[in-house]
Amino acid sequence: MEPGPPGCSGPAEPGPRLRRLCGADQEASAALLSRAGAEAELQRCVPAVAAVLPAGGSGERMGVPTPKQFCPILDRPLISYTLQALERVCWIKDIVVAVTRENMEAMKAIIQRYQHQRISLVEAGVTRHRSIFSGLKALAQDQPDSQLSKPEVVIIHDAVRPFVEEDVLLKVVTAAKEHGAAGAIRPLVSTVICPSADGCLDQSLDRARHRASEMPQAFLFDVIYEAYQQCSDYDLEFGTECLHLALKYCHIKAKLVEGSPDLWKVTYKRDLYAAESIIKERISQQICMVMDTKEDEEHIGHRLEEMLKNELSHVKVTSGALGHTGRDLQQIILEQCYNFVCVNVRAYEFEETQKLLDVLKESDLSILYPVVVISVHFLDCKSVPFGQKMENLTQIREFAKEVKKRNILLCGLLIYYPQDEQKLQDSLRQGATIIATLIKERNSGLVGQLLVA
Amino acid sequence: MEPGPPGCSGPAEPGPRLRRLCGADQEASAALLSRAGAEAELQRCVPAVAAVLPAGGSGERMGVPTPKQFCPILDRPLISYTLQALERVCWIKDIVVAVTRENMEAMKAIIQRYQHQRISLVEAGVTRHRSIFSGLKALAQDQPDSQLSKPEVVIIHDAVRPFVEEDVLLKVVTAAKEHGAAGAIRPLVSTVICPSADGCLDQSLDRARHRASEMPQAFLFDVIYEAYQQCSDYDLEFGTECLHLALKYCHIKAKLVEGSPDLWKVTYKRDLYAAESIIKERISQQICMVMDTKEDEEHIGHRLEEMLKNELSHVKVTSGALGHTGRDLQQIILEQCYNFVCVNVRAYEFEETQKLLDVLKESDLSILYPVVVISVHFLDCKSVPFGQKMENLTQIREFAKEVKKRNILLCGLLIYYPQDEQKLQDSLRQGATIIATLIKERNSGLVGQLLVA
Repeated sequence: MEPGPPGCSGPAEPGPRLRRLCGADQEASAALLSRAGAEAELQRCVPAVAAVLPAGGSGERMGVPTPKQFCPILDRPLISYTLQALERVCWIKDIVVAVTRENMEAMKAIIQRYQHQRISLVEAGVTRHRSIFSGLKALAQDQPDSQLSKPEVVIIHDAVRPFVEEDVLLKVVTAAKEHGAAGAIRPLVSTVICPSADGCLDQSLDRARHRASEMPQAFLFDVIYEAYQQCSDYDLEFGTECLHLALKYCHIKAKLVEGSPDLWKVTYKRDLYAAESIIKERISQQICMVMDTKEDEEHIGHRLEEMLKNELSHVKVTSGALGHTGRDLQQIILEQCYNFVCVNVRAYEFEETQKLLDVLKESDLSILYPVVVISVHFLDCKSVPFGQKMENLTQIREFAKEVKKRNILLCGLLIYYPQDEQKLQDSLRQGATIIATLIKERNSGLVGQLLVA
Repeated sequence: MEPGPPGCSGPAEPGPRLRRLCGADQEASAALLSRAGAEAELQRCVPAVAAVLPAGGSGERMGVPTPKQFCPILDRPLISYTLQALERVCWIKDIVVAVTRENMEAMKAIIQRYQHQRISLVEAGVTRHRSIFSGLKALAQDQPDSQLSKPEVVIIHDAVRPFVEEDVLLKVVTAAKEHGAAGAIRPLVSTVICPSADGCLDQSLDRARHRASEMPQAFLFDVIYEAYQQCSDYDLEFGTECLHLALKYCHIKAKLVEGSPDLWKVTYKRDLYAAESIIKERISQQICMVMDTKEDEEHIGHRLEEMLKNELSHVKVTSGALGHTGRDLQQIILEQCYNFVCVNVRAYEFEETQKLLDVLKESDLSILYPVVVISVHFLDCKSVPFGQKMENLTQIREFAKEVKKRNILLCGLLIYYPQDEQKLQDSLRQGATIIATLIKERNSGLVGQLLVA
């Protein structure tokens, strides 16, 4: 465990503590706390911090024409997830992104569309080191039009490592303040070998004695800026490791901090697949059941809720009320729940679903992730299944088409309600399976469909 | 390019040539060729080869209780994919898998269920090197009950690298025959560093001068067996690198062969996600349209086919006929197409779908991968949409339930057939989108549903 930042009173583990104040998961709740008090405490604990993100790479290893930082995951560019991870850390004052001239407009559009904050853009160099140097220059106010101020500590991170957590950022910043430089490391997955000129094995390194150097890294600003100013053209052209520059030019031995597996770098196409699956999994951890609990249908809706809790044991199932003010639902939206199961009281109508969609459309919830809404209709087996009323339900296709433009994925789910208890159980279980599938896959190809359990 | 194996006449590139005879993609066609002639040629080209697969690991890095080689991907354990990759290479005579005593029965069940061939099981040791040594001992006939014979060259591979291709296997085998040892390598993704005792940076290695040592590796059997017999308990306990043993104990400098990115080792949970996505993508590259072309509905079915070709430009769309003998379809099944779109001539019946399901049930196609079948019904807009006939279509739920037991995922797709040309285009396009979604996701949660385009 790294020591707490100098001057920081309270618990010895700064990560969780700061998290409670402004961490990603509690970001929404934190907004409701007194920001002034929290920020005052933070200013005592954490030095002035900025981040530099080199994003000028061409992604040649990916085997696709789009540079990997701009490859879409759930229709949003990878770099936007990384910016989101950094900007939710409230003590990072500025985030400087280095992009090539040709991608500058695309990057501005990304910042606007996904409402990123505290971002400044600089033009990338032709190599990674030159891009980082551009970012550092902007922070050093060497550039005439810069609005930025020189930080005490600068974080350097990769645009293609979207899952960086606040705790590791704080660890490298704290260690950099003490040691001058710090970086995240991971155990090696493969043995590293040194080939001879003729392509044969010369030496294999002891895997246990070596580590992979990952990101984020952090530096006292003056240290790393000095290193970049001193370093040779050869370093700027062919080097890849900032810790090496700090060692070579400023004789600073970086503190190495164990990172989590999630810090890995999206490099190959398979890494994009992995990142998409991780993101889908993360936003599928909570389902909100929306019901009007005053009505008769209360019972069966709650039974579906119970079934969801049993079948999807890893998922948090909460209840939201539309009610008069819709306040509960607003709270759930603030907590960033991206999945809604809405029970309609009159089985052949969409009253509750429409109310929910109105609330969602007014919120910003679907800006960052596609929101899944499943409109549930319980059908009594005694009624005629394919009558005129049934046709009313086909309206869902039009609703779905409209809300899809707002990144809301709407599907219908008809659940038969037989008298036989065992059959009812089966219906509810199948309903839960369909709900789980729609939430897990989050695929827009099925919006507007009426599924049957 | 590696040189061809000694004594091999014909083209200088043995990979493609052998592939033509027995490669994975042409496996089915090869079965129809004269096996005797092909095998005689192979025996001249390739030495006697066996493979050893250590699979005794506990998968602690995965963060899940199941050892990673047994984690399911599309409901099939990862190790089964690796065995499939090795056994389709016809010149590998024996595959020796080292598993722990507690997983022995589970492994036998996997071999039986997925019909793996040429596999022998040995008991794993407590470390990777001890497991490999057990496998080598079995091949050296040191064990009384062994049915195996000593190969000239032995491949060592990991149970958790399922995407190994025949060409890299042949390259390492050929290089091992010439140099005594050979292994696949990859460029480093991260800089490798050497930490000091106090957890600070001591030295960072030049990324360009080092490589990651991956699998497969191959050795002259006598070389690697000698190395294992000579090596210390410390090596057996803490070593990880077979190439290192050959160097240290037999003074053999292994030839290093560039491998593809797909050789990576499934290590973390994200790697399982990536592997699943890669496998899903691979088995979604071909769709077979099944139609009875003699009937009136020929036209609209072919228009759907055209739409699929336009919308899914990366997918090969072929036609299969049920006909009298069903021979075309048998050929497509032999070519390992896992996706079928079946057009039913009488829109409210399942005649063609049922015939197709019968053919699929008789084949072995769904043993290794879930097969997607989409039963297409073109509905004329003038007919009553929710009548008695429509209810007939709900039978699909029962069919789907039955064939799901056979790993066949059946869904229905109703495509409206309006008079208006533009609307018809829209219907067909939406149909293509739904088909693409069902094939891509291959999720059993939606089987038996009737989707509407």
